[in-house]
Amino acid sequence: MALTGDMLIGSSNVPASAGTMRALNPATGEHIGPEFAFGGPAEVDRAARLADEAFDSYNRTGLEERAAFLELIADRLDGINQELAERTALETGLPAAQLQGEAATAASQFRQFADLVREGRFRDATIDPAQPERHPRPRMDHRMQKIAIGPVAIFGASNFPISYSIAGGDTASALAAGAPVILKAHNAHPGASELQARAIRSAVVDSGLHEGVFSMLRGAGNEIGEALVDHPLIKAVTFTGSERGGMALYRRAQLRPDPIPVFAEMTSVNPTFILPAALAARGAEAGDGFAVRMLVNVGQMCLKPAILLAVDGPGYAEMRDAAKARVNAMGARTMLAPGIHDAYDQGAQRLRESGAETLTEGPEPQGSWEGRSRLLEVDGERFLADPGLAEEAFGPVALLVRLTGMAQLLDVARTFRGQLSATMHLDEADHSDAARLLPILERRTGRIVVNAFSVPQEVGHATIHGGPFPATTDSRFTSVGMTSIDRFLRPVTYQGFPDALLPDALAADNPLGLRRLVDGHLTQD
Amino acid sequence: MALTGDMLIGSSNVPASAGTMRALNPATGEHIGPEFAFGGPAEVDRAARLADEAFDSYNRTGLEERAAFLELIADRLDGINQELAERTALETGLPAAQLQGEAATAASQFRQFADLVREGRFRDATIDPAQPERHPRPRMDHRMQKIAIGPVAIFGASNFPISYSIAGGDTASALAAGAPVILKAHNAHPGASELQARAIRSAVVDSGLHEGVFSMLRGAGNEIGEALVDHPLIKAVTFTGSERGGMALYRRAQLRPDPIPVFAEMTSVNPTFILPAALAARGAEAGDGFAVRMLVNVGQMCLKPAILLAVDGPGYAEMRDAAKARVNAMGARTMLAPGIHDAYDQGAQRLRESGAETLTEGPEPQGSWEGRSRLLEVDGERFLADPGLAEEAFGPVALLVRLTGMAQLLDVARTFRGQLSATMHLDEADHSDAARLLPILERRTGRIVVNAFSVPQEVGHATIHGGPFPATTDSRFTSVGMTSIDRFLRPVTYQGFPDALLPDALAADNPLGLRRLVDGHLTQD
Repeated sequence: MALTGDMLIGSSNVPASAGTMRALNPATGEHIGPEFAFGGPAEVDRAARLADEAFDSYNRTGLEERAAFLELIADRLDGINQELAERTALETGLPAAQLQGEAATAASQFRQFADLVREGRFRDATIDPAQPERHPRPRMDHRMQKIAIGPVAIFGASNFPISYSIAGGDTASALAAGAPVILKAHNAHPGASELQARAIRSAVVDSGLHEGVFSMLRGAGNEIGEALVDHPLIKAVTFTGSERGGMALYRRAQLRPDPIPVFAEMTSVNPTFILPAALAARGAEAGDGFAVRMLVNVGQMCLKPAILLAVDGPGYAEMRDAAKARVNAMGARTMLAPGIHDAYDQGAQRLRESGAETLTEGPEPQGSWEGRSRLLEVDGERFLADPGLAEEAFGPVALLVRLTGMAQLLDVARTFRGQLSATMHLDEADHSDAARLLPILERRTGRIVVNAFSVPQEVGHATIHGGPFPATTDSRFTSVGMTSIDRFLRPVTYQGFPDALLPDALAADNPLGLRRLVDGHLTQD
Repeated sequence: MALTGDMLIGSSNVPASAGTMRALNPATGEHIGPEFAFGGPAEVDRAARLADEAFDSYNRTGLEERAAFLELIADRLDGINQELAERTALETGLPAAQLQGEAATAASQFRQFADLVREGRFRDATIDPAQPERHPRPRMDHRMQKIAIGPVAIFGASNFPISYSIAGGDTASALAAGAPVILKAHNAHPGASELQARAIRSAVVDSGLHEGVFSMLRGAGNEIGEALVDHPLIKAVTFTGSERGGMALYRRAQLRPDPIPVFAEMTSVNPTFILPAALAARGAEAGDGFAVRMLVNVGQMCLKPAILLAVDGPGYAEMRDAAKARVNAMGARTMLAPGIHDAYDQGAQRLRESGAETLTEGPEPQGSWEGRSRLLEVDGERFLADPGLAEEAFGPVALLVRLTGMAQLLDVARTFRGQLSATMHLDEADHSDAARLLPILERRTGRIVVNAFSVPQEVGHATIHGGPFPATTDSRFTSVGMTSIDRFLRPVTYQGFPDALLPDALAADNPLGLRRLVDGHLTQD
């Protein structure tokens, strides 16, 4: 597929109105074509109007029709798997083989949402039948279903250029909910974005849907993003990236005349606790496993375990030595973009200035934007004194926190802000300590992991990729997994309706065969 | 029960730190004792710390224990039914018999939430079992449940002094979710608030729960409310009242270092559409039924139908005449508070200044704070030209909108902001018109009613008392009904946990007998 560099607004290829850019190959520093078009508020308005026009018909697509559309997107993504991985590798420095896996996962995510749509449970169909004989007053028939909130603006992320970008979980879940989508592509991978967007658009066209169901825009600076967040026809926003970027969008959306939800997934240090018995039993294994995981993708992951906490005692020295050896041996690697590289070096420097001691560094970088592996250490007292030590430094650096005992471990755990995940390594002898730590972690994290380092993100029914602020802007939702669709759904009650006017999900004879909550009891009648 | 006028912070009676007030009897203008204590930020801090202390144990109460606690609250409310109704009548001018009904409904709401808690569905227990053999990579065991978001601050409303106040749905749903609650009592009914708060507190004590589960504060001006919204240990806020008041709290909460959700239910004109065939068949009945409903509680209801829309044609004159007759005959009645009365007169004046013509007014008020019944009319063209005509005037005034045809009716429908409810009156011959109107209403309202005027608020599974902004600040939730609990719940995933550390809802042998989603399928195993 030849890249044109256009924006895609509905079925139109839209050329630049506000300049162009070329892609950057961060491994070589070379710029690669074509010229990618930038737009501004005029393109936002055009896409938003189309999305609004598309809403009524798309929101009313049958479950089967919508599921088939999502599956067609999956097929189209599979059809460009290799081409997409190769282009994405050029633009990100990530290995093409890994990106083929990411693209396959992204496709399968659309299939999972197709299954969810077909099953129809997301509608939460609920019926409280009329009770004309009830005293002191009769009850009318009430029926409730969930429908889409309206057109959704999605900001593509830089670090997973497929699965958190154009064809990512935000897009899949919003389309599954019945919401038209406008993507703001990330400029770190414009060609990869165009390929994904064309795959989705071809599925829109070939499914006979309104063209406004999907658009992809691109812009320089903040203007286009601000125009998206401000547009009165946009009803929700998602974002994955820095706390600064996410909060700028969030606060802007709250200042609209009609505030809208912004689900921003922002920052997490994913603390890992090695409890005493586990530390004594396998300190070296823990230190090594932690360091391996921390270094994945040059430390550029939302789920990078950035902080390792353990009580100084049997196994601690072995843990530290194993982590040191692993970090020391990992060569510097190209980071996603020059800005990310520079912020990484500053972040590591900030940790040192806050009193963390450098235990080791990997080999010196050869290329301009390579991130050097680093391992730092600090004691619990110092950690408690400086909240900055608990802040994320995005890149291949981790901090060991050496604690005086379980009491200090619990005190330190209480200081963490909201997290996407936390991990406990434990043996049976640690259960009582774990039971004390658990309520502290529950209040602060969306996911708690036991005895695992490598925790790739599952896309399942029980998946939560979310958590209290600042992990996200709303701890009641997730950005990954089947329930991520809830971000884009709102309930509507139909009271006293004649059957002819009821939506299918609520009709008397249950034509969709849904499992419905009738008078508080689930039934498939 | 003798009123002391204290604030209740946990199990302590706390005297004034910032002045006192006496209650106002709006029917007589007399002030009634005792002196009610005002507090400030120090009392907020004390209550918030207690609530935070209570969180871990209360959030972990067993389902049966929590359900029994909610039922005990219901019993205690029933025990003071008559006393509460009499005191509330003194403070609000509402009839005592009606308030006995409101208190009984409030009690039964706690019982309904007890049933919901006992059944355990609110936990959304979900299990994606381990798949150690899966290729290319194995899956770990993932289990998800919902827990409470943290301590919740609730602002009591003025218009329903029991069911939207201390013992209202916000309190019942938050306590059901496992969230400790801090009430800011409304100063329009301080004695009624104290009676309700004492009933709840006695249930906390007699259930052996941590005292911080419930506190009630009172304050002059905005200081105490602002301190509640700002307090770092408060994790969610609910409010029912004016758009100005709700948005002040909402925007303040978004400016916290860690923004928190504010669910504010604010304003709605609940448009009522009489479609042509229904109008021709029963215009007089429609006009009368509308006016009766509009006048209930002196027009001081979130669900007051404020705007009646119909195409000028057969039945229109009869509809107008019947509405006129009803409004003309309704004497002026005491409103809830002097400020509400003054705002009402200003609101009616504003409608007239926007070009609405006065069709009739009821008898002149005799008392100072009586609201005069009023019916206004405007044509569709004028309505479309002035968005102010679609704004709420809280009190016994309604606006007829005379339309030129269905096209103008649909145009007018599209101009409405978000609503709690909308109503269509229709006959079978109206179905095709209704089908065109329905998607417009779905996007703008939380509830759509067919062929009913009297629509008392049900508290059911399919109940939605919510809607797009400015009806509420988040269209994805409701403030009334069983799903109102969702406002206070957040998901947590437990990954790779040994059974001994799992919460009961997720344990291997399903000790609570919950219906759980296992691998995407509901099962009770």
